[in-house]
Amino acid sequence: MTEASTISNAGNELIETLRALVGDGGVLTGETVSSRYPGYFMDRIEADAIIRPRTTEEVAGILKLCNAAGQPVVVQGGMSGWVRATQTKPGDIVISLERMAAIEAIDPVNRTATVQAGVVLDTLENALADHGLTFPLDLGGRGSCQLGGNASTNAGGMRVIRYGMMRDQVLGVEAVLADGRIISSLNQMIKNNTGYDLKQLFIGSEGTLGVITRLVLRLRERPTSCNTAIVCAQRFDQMVSLLRHVDQGFGGMLSAYELIDNSFFVVNTGNGSHAAPLPGDRPYYAIIEMLGSNQERDAEMFETVLGKAAELGYFDDAVLASSEAQRQQIWSIREDLEHVVREFQPFYAFDVSLPVGDMERYISEVTSRLKARWPEGKIAFLGHMGDGNLHIAIGAGGPDDRHAVEECVYEPLRPIGGSISAEHGIGLEKKSWLDVSRTAEECGLMSEIKRLLDPGNILNPGKIMDLHP
Amino acid sequence: MTEASTISNAGNELIETLRALVGDGGVLTGETVSSRYPGYFMDRIEADAIIRPRTTEEVAGILKLCNAAGQPVVVQGGMSGWVRATQTKPGDIVISLERMAAIEAIDPVNRTATVQAGVVLDTLENALADHGLTFPLDLGGRGSCQLGGNASTNAGGMRVIRYGMMRDQVLGVEAVLADGRIISSLNQMIKNNTGYDLKQLFIGSEGTLGVITRLVLRLRERPTSCNTAIVCAQRFDQMVSLLRHVDQGFGGMLSAYELIDNSFFVVNTGNGSHAAPLPGDRPYYAIIEMLGSNQERDAEMFETVLGKAAELGYFDDAVLASSEAQRQQIWSIREDLEHVVREFQPFYAFDVSLPVGDMERYISEVTSRLKARWPEGKIAFLGHMGDGNLHIAIGAGGPDDRHAVEECVYEPLRPIGGSISAEHGIGLEKKSWLDVSRTAEECGLMSEIKRLLDPGNILNPGKIMDLHP
Repeated sequence: MTEASTISNAGNELIETLRALVGDGGVLTGETVSSRYPGYFMDRIEADAIIRPRTTEEVAGILKLCNAAGQPVVVQGGMSGWVRATQTKPGDIVISLERMAAIEAIDPVNRTATVQAGVVLDTLENALADHGLTFPLDLGGRGSCQLGGNASTNAGGMRVIRYGMMRDQVLGVEAVLADGRIISSLNQMIKNNTGYDLKQLFIGSEGTLGVITRLVLRLRERPTSCNTAIVCAQRFDQMVSLLRHVDQGFGGMLSAYELIDNSFFVVNTGNGSHAAPLPGDRPYYAIIEMLGSNQERDAEMFETVLGKAAELGYFDDAVLASSEAQRQQIWSIREDLEHVVREFQPFYAFDVSLPVGDMERYISEVTSRLKARWPEGKIAFLGHMGDGNLHIAIGAGGPDDRHAVEECVYEPLRPIGGSISAEHGIGLEKKSWLDVSRTAEECGLMSEIKRLLDPGNILNPGKIMDLHP
Repeated sequence: MTEASTISNAGNELIETLRALVGDGGVLTGETVSSRYPGYFMDRIEADAIIRPRTTEEVAGILKLCNAAGQPVVVQGGMSGWVRATQTKPGDIVISLERMAAIEAIDPVNRTATVQAGVVLDTLENALADHGLTFPLDLGGRGSCQLGGNASTNAGGMRVIRYGMMRDQVLGVEAVLADGRIISSLNQMIKNNTGYDLKQLFIGSEGTLGVITRLVLRLRERPTSCNTAIVCAQRFDQMVSLLRHVDQGFGGMLSAYELIDNSFFVVNTGNGSHAAPLPGDRPYYAIIEMLGSNQERDAEMFETVLGKAAELGYFDDAVLASSEAQRQQIWSIREDLEHVVREFQPFYAFDVSLPVGDMERYISEVTSRLKARWPEGKIAFLGHMGDGNLHIAIGAGGPDDRHAVEECVYEPLRPIGGSISAEHGIGLEKKSWLDVSRTAEECGLMSEIKRLLDPGNILNPGKIMDLHP
């Protein structure tokens, strides 16, 4: 048997049957597939075809055929993921919901939106402005990520401390099982306790248990005031006290509490980057944002609460944004990754979570491990501290040192019950480290659930984990 | 075969084996069992024994033995449920976690509590005061309900519009499967995307998929201001506009929006009941509460936002509580059920949810159906309008009319995608109406999940639904 023949090509026959189902425009093959944007950390889309259904019934038809043929299926959304959860190999078929991109309903009384899974996050948000509503999920990929992908990865982002993860925004889900069964749980209410909450199976399972086709999303009142500050501090315990102080003091309006360490601050306020609003010599910085309803009143409250924090010694210095331009300047120090990617080479990015009380020791432990191995290595911490979520940027080692770098980051999570993935998911990228965060019993149960819902293992096979025997 | 012999008694042998496992104090039988408080709508606890483990390992041991023996097991918590989800029959064994009532840890930095499932809701809340924290779940049963029961029923209550359901407060769960396997998912972080979120299986499944033994709960900053008002209105659309107006205007601090209709208001402000703060002739009333951090500042904001609502015609009249005593008076109109239970006979209570935009028509439809059949019948609506949740009190018909009364309430939910249970669950009480809110495909998948996790059907068998073939 030659090597080529071990690659199981999706049969032409199956692709032609699928073409009959979804029409010519619904099937992409060849160059059209391989030249598409493949997503972060992936060279190209290797799948044999991309199938683009227009209805839930077409998705059901596709899956029924693929399931019968034992055909592996990878669902791709906006391709803004960081963990190669959408990676394909030759022989795979991709389902893309890009032609299911309708906002079916916005209900301003019930404050819900019913959307097809292919709607881009920003598209929904823009459609809500006229209604005075917001869909509060906010992340870097907002201009390309699709709501189906946000659900299947349980996306997080900037405002989780206020509004929760994607899971908390989803009221209802319609999903198609591997065998083509349509599970329609399009609940529209905040409260609905009628048996098992099946939508939870599809949220965050990275396309391995079903294909999400439609969603009912909870909408919120659109805030009409915004107050932003950046502070610096000498000690981590100041950052901890400040978090509680502003969360209490803002009475429910704290919407972001973003930690930035000295390394990251210095990279992003150095030569040719952004203006430094604060001295560059402090170990810790934080961006604090409060969203409310009355700019004048809320600005006064914001200043009062931060003034009290200054008295209490919870930070050393602070700058409050007095215009939207200043606000953008402050946020650019947090959001701009260009400089760190250039200066930290080879560049590794991590996304972990851990109890806030363990953070200072964890930061020091990871730094020590890295420096012990690569004294010239670079490391920076930032992240959604209010959610226990740290992002870590590392520039160290050579091209073959990925595992050793990962070890520095992941092993210290083990004793403290930390998570190797706060918001990015597992995909292929973190699969080999899953046991840091999940027990053998948990992985066993996950495997059983996967087998129940997808006995042929056709849905995104090999992602998250290999099935336990 | 005589009738008595068809009752499958839990063998004495099994009970003695369990006694050896948990000790003498861990096994209750006979009068001690049958004289215990049986819960709402149940005459007595019919189970053969109540087993009271002290550790998760004991729970695992109990379930392993019961599973091997095909022994039905019902987990009982604080017995404050309304749907007979904890009902037993002769031959059943009860597991009670009342001896697993330790608050294992309160972490004021990470803002989490780790508790055993038998901790009473109020006990936790009282323990948090010194830390300036709150566990925001708030419901009538607070003095007796256990956190394990709150999780297994996904409890709701008064503050869901602000903080979400119990599901949203649970970060980690430890549960024991029917076969004794311990699934320890005691995650402590708001963000953790490492594979399937197994805890969701145990939350809200009413003890049919596993026994919850420990929980990690998210805590919030304790509010230090409280502002409360009651308003009245001529039209339902005023109530709808007011809800959005205060939710926007309070900028994240709206914590309760409770609808009361004229019937309920009149019953609870009539002879011998509570003082009427407002005229008794309006169709709709609402209690509005805002929790914040600064009494003086927040009171001003509360008045300003409500003042604007008055200008806009969103209510006819309002009373703002100017003291805690006045606040209690206002809430007593909502919370006191004594008068309605006395005046509405036979008394039926319902708990449904539906899109807010359908509420006015639904209220009128249910009322018409009831009055058509029982012209003298009494009906009152109240509830957590902000969550789409209505409670309905009915006094109509005779002792054999339960099904006909239920029909008036549940059938109109069918065309609008409403839920027959917003927060109470299904248990036995609503089992026969499940198809109003769940599709055949959903029930099929629920049955598959039940069979996967509990192949012997020993965990609370017959609750929620009968297994689909």
